[in-house]
Amino acid sequence: MAHETRGNEMENSTTSNSATSKLLSPYSRPLIRNAWYCAAWADELGETLLARRILDWPILLYRTESGDPTALLDICPHKLAPMHLGRREGDNVVCGYHGLTFNQHGTCVRNPQGNQIIPPQAKLRSFPVVERFEVIWIWMGAPELAGPSQIADFSDIGAPDRKTVRGGHRVESNYMLMVENLMDLGHALFLHGQSAGTANVELAESKVFQENGAVMDQRLYRGIAAPFTFASYVNRHDEKVDFWTDITWRAPSLIQNYAGVSPPGQARDPASAIFQVGSHMLTPETQHTTHYFYAHSRNYALEDPEADAVYKTWQRKALKEEDSLMAEAIERNVPDASAMGVDMVMLSTDVSGFRVNRILDELAAAEQ
Amino acid sequence: MAHETRGNEMENSTTSNSATSKLLSPYSRPLIRNAWYCAAWADELGETLLARRILDWPILLYRTESGDPTALLDICPHKLAPMHLGRREGDNVVCGYHGLTFNQHGTCVRNPQGNQIIPPQAKLRSFPVVERFEVIWIWMGAPELAGPSQIADFSDIGAPDRKTVRGGHRVESNYMLMVENLMDLGHALFLHGQSAGTANVELAESKVFQENGAVMDQRLYRGIAAPFTFASYVNRHDEKVDFWTDITWRAPSLIQNYAGVSPPGQARDPASAIFQVGSHMLTPETQHTTHYFYAHSRNYALEDPEADAVYKTWQRKALKEEDSLMAEAIERNVPDASAMGVDMVMLSTDVSGFRVNRILDELAAAEQ
Amino acid sequence: MAHETRGNEMENSTTSNSATSKLLSPYSRPLIRNAWYCAAWADELGETLLARRILDWPILLYRTESGDPTALLDICPHKLAPMHLGRREGDNVVCGYHGLTFNQHGTCVRNPQGNQIIPPQAKLRSFPVVERFEVIWIWMGAPELAGPSQIADFSDIGAPDRKTVRGGHRVESNYMLMVENLMDLGHALFLHGQSAGTANVELAESKVFQENGAVMDQRLYRGIAAPFTFASYVNRHDEKVDFWTDITWRAPSLIQNYAGVSPPGQARDPASAIFQVGSHMLTPETQHTTHYFYAHSRNYALEDPEADAVYKTWQRKALKEEDSLMAEAIERNVPDASAMGVDMVMLSTDVSGFRVNRILDELAAAEQ
Repeated sequence: MAHETRGNEMENSTTSNSATSKLLSPYSRPLIRNAWYCAAWADELGETLLARRILDWPILLYRTESGDPTALLDICPHKLAPMHLGRREGDNVVCGYHGLTFNQHGTCVRNPQGNQIIPPQAKLRSFPVVERFEVIWIWMGAPELAGPSQIADFSDIGAPDRKTVRGGHRVESNYMLMVENLMDLGHALFLHGQSAGTANVELAESKVFQENGAVMDQRLYRGIAAPFTFASYVNRHDEKVDFWTDITWRAPSLIQNYAGVSPPGQARDPASAIFQVGSHMLTPETQHTTHYFYAHSRNYALEDPEADAVYKTWQRKALKEEDSLMAEAIERNVPDASAMGVDMVMLSTDVSGFRVNRILDELAAAEQ
Repeated sequence: MAHETRGNEMENSTTSNSATSKLLSPYSRPLIRNAWYCAAWADELGETLLARRILDWPILLYRTESGDPTALLDICPHKLAPMHLGRREGDNVVCGYHGLTFNQHGTCVRNPQGNQIIPPQAKLRSFPVVERFEVIWIWMGAPELAGPSQIADFSDIGAPDRKTVRGGHRVESNYMLMVENLMDLGHALFLHGQSAGTANVELAESKVFQENGAVMDQRLYRGIAAPFTFASYVNRHDEKVDFWTDITWRAPSLIQNYAGVSPPGQARDPASAIFQVGSHMLTPETQHTTHYFYAHSRNYALEDPEADAVYKTWQRKALKEEDSLMAEAIERNVPDASAMGVDMVMLSTDVSGFRVNRILDELAAAEQ
Repeated sequence: MAHETRGNEMENSTTSNSATSKLLSPYSRPLIRNAWYCAAWADELGETLLARRILDWPILLYRTESGDPTALLDICPHKLAPMHLGRREGDNVVCGYHGLTFNQHGTCVRNPQGNQIIPPQAKLRSFPVVERFEVIWIWMGAPELAGPSQIADFSDIGAPDRKTVRGGHRVESNYMLMVENLMDLGHALFLHGQSAGTANVELAESKVFQENGAVMDQRLYRGIAAPFTFASYVNRHDEKVDFWTDITWRAPSLIQNYAGVSPPGQARDPASAIFQVGSHMLTPETQHTTHYFYAHSRNYALEDPEADAVYKTWQRKALKEEDSLMAEAIERNVPDASAMGVDMVMLSTDVSGFRVNRILDELAAAEQ
């Protein structure tokens, strides 16, 4: 495992103009197509036709009668009608305009009009989909490059020894504004008002790793009061704890955050820690809007509905009303910042986000 | 009268890539200017100033005191105020900003400001208009090419031996999406749910004619149950009928549809048929929006308010909520289909629409 | 003082095509940056953070604890968050995302994140502001050119021997449409319905002056009934008066209008005139929207709330519902007029507006 301190890297990047100028590009970088994205929660998919825009393509999602998830381009090649305005007929989908009927592979199987001949090029583009970890994963790039083994391990979602609380919403910003948000939890002090627990304390540890294309950002606060999500579940409420966050990013926009509290000196010890895994999946809807799927899977208070409520509230308040509102405000500021030549600055805590952007720049360049 | 079967024409067009690629262009084709369009129903025009955008120009419409319809550019040449914010003064219109006054020919007849001199170039562009068939027809092209004799015969509207039900609404799509809709009534089975009468029956006749620049599409179903608009007015309700539709398109977007039912074997026999004439006039508001005017003139149940209600309901439900909603959905899909290289296909029933587009391509090319 | 009649100037400009074609450009002319603009009324500014877009830049406005007005770019250089989503801390402002803290000069004074080092380029651009005449004036151009002595004398606002009624609203048009509106009060007859007092009467005097870069337009009507704003305050209601308006424009969009009534033959005599000074400050929000600030300061009925109400009503009805609505309608017409090659005309009363545009053309050219 490559281990690095952030010292030189940051000094260079905060003083180099070229590094600085690259920082405006993340929000207009071409979307990465050769990757698995969360298209929907598994239980969103059923018999009815679900229309969802993904990577700026209109996609039709449904399940066949045997339960297989299906993703087709949501445009009939006859007169360009959206297929989701049609209806299911067995495993097929019937266009609501003139009745052209396609099977789950996108092959036209019926033309009810006139001579009833099926034109050979009548087909809907089909997209690879896989159901795993309660998620419908979709591959929007070259189909021959899609391998289910590339899907990252999100087995924390719904794991039997955890209690998972899930949610999702749409953000009116480029997905990178949410990725950068999640890669630097230092914003929690200011945006989420968690000043009680962690303000004015020094980070005891801040490590940035890179491994197999993933970027890890690990932080540790020693001997502080437990943050509020955990406070009620620590044995003694006045007890000081070690609070740690281990974040892993995988391209292009999958983030897992192990965050927990441990008795002082025992950070991350699985025997004594109580923690939750935040699973964050950011799927670009367009260049400027994002589907945000998230789950929190905790290893404590598994049967406690009040703990569920804590996470539900957190998802609504912190992820939606605070993080996403901020991302949307920044999205609107980006053209101004660019036009006004704002000289962006990096802080030491931006190292992991910086690396993420460097990797995505390479991936995007390779796809062009 | 030129008579053609559609066989070879379709085979060629469904396999030729060049023909296919042309099919994306209808919705971005430059609007045809040298043509008569329906600007308004005659009874929409009165003393008050009516503002309506036509072919992407803002037009001011009113009647003079002697009843002559008048169409002027809705932009005062002084300070660019919309003239419709002003007021009538006899046959003149007074700008609501500084009072420049123009007569019904667009000539400035009064400057109430300062030295009161009328600048020689102070005029509003005037557009040829003709009132005929309960319609105000407008010519948006070169005025010297405008001849009232070019106005198509829409004398079915309000004809004394018919009962006419009229309506209109605005569609948020290019006008061609509605033209293509009307040229292929095969969509009725799927979009309007008329499956009871006509599903799974073979077309006994399908002819496409072309004559003097008009395109005719005639279809016949033999021995079926009467479609619901006619069913109550057929002598015996269990009787099988011949159902026929005769559609005529004239450039750029005028469509007449004779649709009726006859005793078996007597299709179109005027003595025994009950039928209605659908008059459809599609006037581009902009490249992406359309004023849709329509009238249904029936030869039966002339005094029956229930028959009126059937057509009112049809206009609202089929033409507005179904056809127009579909056209609007396709309008939004067009940029995607183009970006994603969707390979459009033609069905045998698209021959008349294909010809319409070919003629309009030629007209548009000639105007450029 | 340069004195000119408008004769030749108008003849030339109404017949010259090049002068005419230039008339379309005022509404797309680049905004003038080296000038003092009204950013806000002084009493709009307090402890809270006020966000306002000015000349298409997002600006943050607040007062320090000692009362100094402060204007900073509303974009944090760290992650581009709008600073107005943060909070005050003494004279400083704290970013609501990661806590970067800036003083009233825009210098970063605290980085609470990670190594807490403040990057040298971390700053918010600061804009010169001056509080004078109940107005916060802002300079959006090159700071070294900003001199408070350049601020025009608007001491009528709130002057102790006057009674001032103030207001403001946002107009969805380029600021020049309001400037031209104010430079030609001939529109009042038509847009504001003041026909009772002044219709069909000849201007006894119409002078256009130019002096030190200012343009003055002075008009006089002799022996007419007093306009309604003054009518109740004239000694004898049936008395005929001289009604006069003296308008002064200063670049780019500051206008003062002295308008009053005097006994016949004594126009503008300070001893006998009752008048009001209209102070109009038009600050471009964007190229297509405007902040409109206005005050009416009268020399009569100083303690009369009914006179206040007359002006409040005038501001709402004439300036907002009539003038601004017209400007917004024209703004929407401008692209059409340009596309359709509308040949604009000038009237004799447009001389002052013509000169204003000529000066602004020069200023804009000098700034490019």
